[in-house]
Amino acid sequence: MKSHDEATAINIPESNTESKGKGVAAAPTPVVATTSTATKVIQLGKAPGGWKRGIAILDFVVRLLGIAAALTATTVMGTTDETLPFFTQFFQFQASYDDLPAFTFFVVANAVASAYLVLSLPFSIVSIIQPHAVGARLLLLIFDTVMVALTTAGASAAAAIVYLAHKGNASANWIAICQQFNGFCQRISGAVVASFIATVIFMFLVVIASIALRKH
Amino acid sequence: MKSHDEATAINIPESNTESKGKGVAAAPTPVVATTSTATKVIQLGKAPGGWKRGIAILDFVVRLLGIAAALTATTVMGTTDETLPFFTQFFQFQASYDDLPAFTFFVVANAVASAYLVLSLPFSIVSIIQPHAVGARLLLLIFDTVMVALTTAGASAAAAIVYLAHKGNASANWIAICQQFNGFCQRISGAVVASFIATVIFMFLVVIASIALRKH
Repeated sequence: MKSHDEATAINIPESNTESKGKGVAAAPTPVVATTSTATKVIQLGKAPGGWKRGIAILDFVVRLLGIAAALTATTVMGTTDETLPFFTQFFQFQASYDDLPAFTFFVVANAVASAYLVLSLPFSIVSIIQPHAVGARLLLLIFDTVMVALTTAGASAAAAIVYLAHKGNASANWIAICQQFNGFCQRISGAVVASFIATVIFMFLVVIASIALRKH
Repeated sequence: MKSHDEATAINIPESNTESKGKGVAAAPTPVVATTSTATKVIQLGKAPGGWKRGIAILDFVVRLLGIAAALTATTVMGTTDETLPFFTQFFQFQASYDDLPAFTFFVVANAVASAYLVLSLPFSIVSIIQPHAVGARLLLLIFDTVMVALTTAGASAAAAIVYLAHKGNASANWIAICQQFNGFCQRISGAVVASFIATVIFMFLVVIASIALRKH
């Protein structure tokens, strides 16, 4: 077909011979170059690169939500400190997160998760710029999995203690303390919920990263 | 190798012309077919398929270890029941896992993890047979991530309560019960350790599945 077109081009513009000769000489190279460039653009922008870049952008946005959830959990738990308005001769009734090791672990776990999420943002941006780069995604997936475990551990340990604080336990003779420290219990319950939201966000990040990692 | 053998067979037995002519006429088709088959065998068996199959076998073996860990955690926690050798007029001192909701959740979580691991074995075998199949790996990866969260939640909640049982808490006026129920505390501590091992195994499964999912 191409040789046929060239033959037509030679036959019709008989007036401009110089331009025609140049056109014939230059024709093959641009045609080939344009075709391969077009194919490359389609491959990068549409076929696999498009949805991979979309997942990378989703990853970035979800990380921002995760920072919000983990930071909320950390600060709410870390700043909760209730002092009851009555006290005896010997001691004042006061409840703070560092009275219970599970709550201290909760604060540390969520602070680590927040810091990790902030540090992971540049790697997420790398995935947006280069949707086919495997290294950054794989690194994030592995650390996200570790963070699923870390935030779940913090949230569950705190939840077990919060449940005990609300209900107490007759078998072990542990009394419920939430009647006295009601504001304290409400705030730490909120922190636990925020931390579980962060856990779900990390699980979502692992799943979308694994979908983006698979070939095609 | 097969095409080479055929070529040898054509060159050496010069005496048999009829057979040679037939060989030459039949040669092109088998050569092409053999080459593409050989390439396919190399792709499946060596270049990416080999280590992908190796990872699939590792995945299977690690799942068996996970079943052992999760089943141990479930049964040790579920069968722990200590009755103290003394009793008062009103009640007998007895400790069992279902006295504390965190321990009940622990048993349920580890039982679910054990059942899931058994059910996941066929999918793991599919990955061994077809190292390039993406669907089975991706399915397992997503559920493994959920199981990381589930087993971590069970283990951490139980660990928080076990810690409380060992140490008690002065602020909340919760007494340590492990002085009385020493055998009970030792057994549930062992169950928690087994469950954390199961968690680490699930995290390992997620990581190796993500490595196997990436292209090349």
